Amino acid sequence: MNVLIVYAHPEPKSFNGALKDLAVSELTALGHQVKVSDLYAMNFKAVADRGDFETVLDENFLKYQMEQRNAAKENGFSEDIRAEQEKLLWADFVIFQFPLWWYSVPAILKGWFDRVFASGFVYGRGIGRYDSGGLKGRKAMLSTTTGSPKHAYTPYGMDGDIHEKILYHINHGMLYFAGLEPVEPFIAWTPAHDANDREQYLEEFKQRLHNLSDIPSIPYHPSSHYDENHQLKEEYRQNHQ
Amino acid sequence: MNVLIVYAHPEPKSFNGALKDLAVSELTALGHQVKVSDLYAMNFKAVADRGDFETVLDENFLKYQMEQRNAAKENGFSEDIRAEQEKLLWADFVIFQFPLWWYSVPAILKGWFDRVFASGFVYGRGIGRYDSGGLKGRKAMLSTTTGSPKHAYTPYGMDGDIHEKILYHINHGMLYFAGLEPVEPFIAWTPAHDANDREQYLEEFKQRLHNLSDIPSIPYHPSSHYDENHQLKEEYRQNHQ
Repeated sequence: MNVLIVYAHPEPKSFNGALKDLAVSELTALGHQVKVSDLYAMNFKAVADRGDFETVLDENFLKYQMEQRNAAKENGFSEDIRAEQEKLLWADFVIFQFPLWWYSVPAILKGWFDRVFASGFVYGRGIGRYDSGGLKGRKAMLSTTTGSPKHAYTPYGMDGDIHEKILYHINHGMLYFAGLEPVEPFIAWTPAHDANDREQYLEEFKQRLHNLSDIPSIPYHPSSHYDENHQLKEEYRQNHQ
Repeated sequence: MNVLIVYAHPEPKSFNGALKDLAVSELTALGHQVKVSDLYAMNFKAVADRGDFETVLDENFLKYQMEQRNAAKENGFSEDIRAEQEKLLWADFVIFQFPLWWYSVPAILKGWFDRVFASGFVYGRGIGRYDSGGLKGRKAMLSTTTGSPKHAYTPYGMDGDIHEKILYHINHGMLYFAGLEPVEPFIAWTPAHDANDREQYLEEFKQRLHNLSDIPSIPYHPSSHYDENHQLKEEYRQNHQ
């Protein structure tokens, strides 16, 4: 498979860095093709603005999505955005490696979504969204590290259920919306606290990487399960997530 | 009251810009003191890195949170972070005005949380979190605009419940974690589609601003409702959110 790793951590010696390095070496050894977008090392531009386009649709009023659609038609994205979009089209599987900061992705990675997941590229007229989004046919996995323990992220946990309340906006709102098929995330809970835990997590991550194709997908509903008012049809409401 | 508006949109003529301008003029007319952090106009740095500190705890290994704690002790934050922290301490009420991009805040605003909501300032040793977070005693309100219609954000809606699944990581994970008391968000649904809707939303927002103190708070649980394993105590599990 072609695997793209999008990695966001400011410190190469961090545990996130170790997970990324392990993914590169293991996947390469297994015969996969691997590309890495190391956002900090690339000094990736996080902030969406007019500089993201070589084309100009309306020079007096920046409607960012409209400029994206125009750029998608006219091949007018800035070079850094175009390069990331090409990597996505090349990839069969995308791994996002990042620390969970403020219950979401670090700003540099949020900016990657804001800028690279463009209207006209992953969604918008003539494309679709969710199971018919522009990146359909590809899988994706979040791999993240937390600052709070696992039990704080349970349904009655203080920080909120990790899947339903915390990662939903990323897995469903970003990955799935764009057509990617999100698989179960890999989560290292509070790895900063204990070196033995870190060793254990690296071992578990290695096992994961050996069976990338077998990781269960998150069972989100296809668009066909929703009616014309975007409501889940009655017959699918059991076991809803 | 002292009101801080943190505003994130690249186009001053946008509807987000109109909401921000209305907030400034109305709140000022009502006798409040108003400060605005216009993140795009300030060219606010979005990406957390070593440049955020004048102090250095460990020059060989950037542990961002540890550097934050050290900077909090030593008054070592970079000037732009310090200025935002001072505005937060000055404020009684904080309004966040932003478009909902990828089911979260734009990267420039995420970077504001990553960098300004520092360990040692809003949470961490000797402070608390949630109802005892560093910014306790202050209220905050999200004011946002969407690209999908309201019914897509209902409990069985295609995009996920706006409160439980989408805004939770911001209201609970960012605002409440830091000690702010989040009130019900103001949401303008797909304002890009219709000028009449925009007029209507401006009118509704104006009414909101006239009664800032009366906006109901989101009924999140205080820390005392959780046991020593961060689990919500049995007696509070009805009507949990």
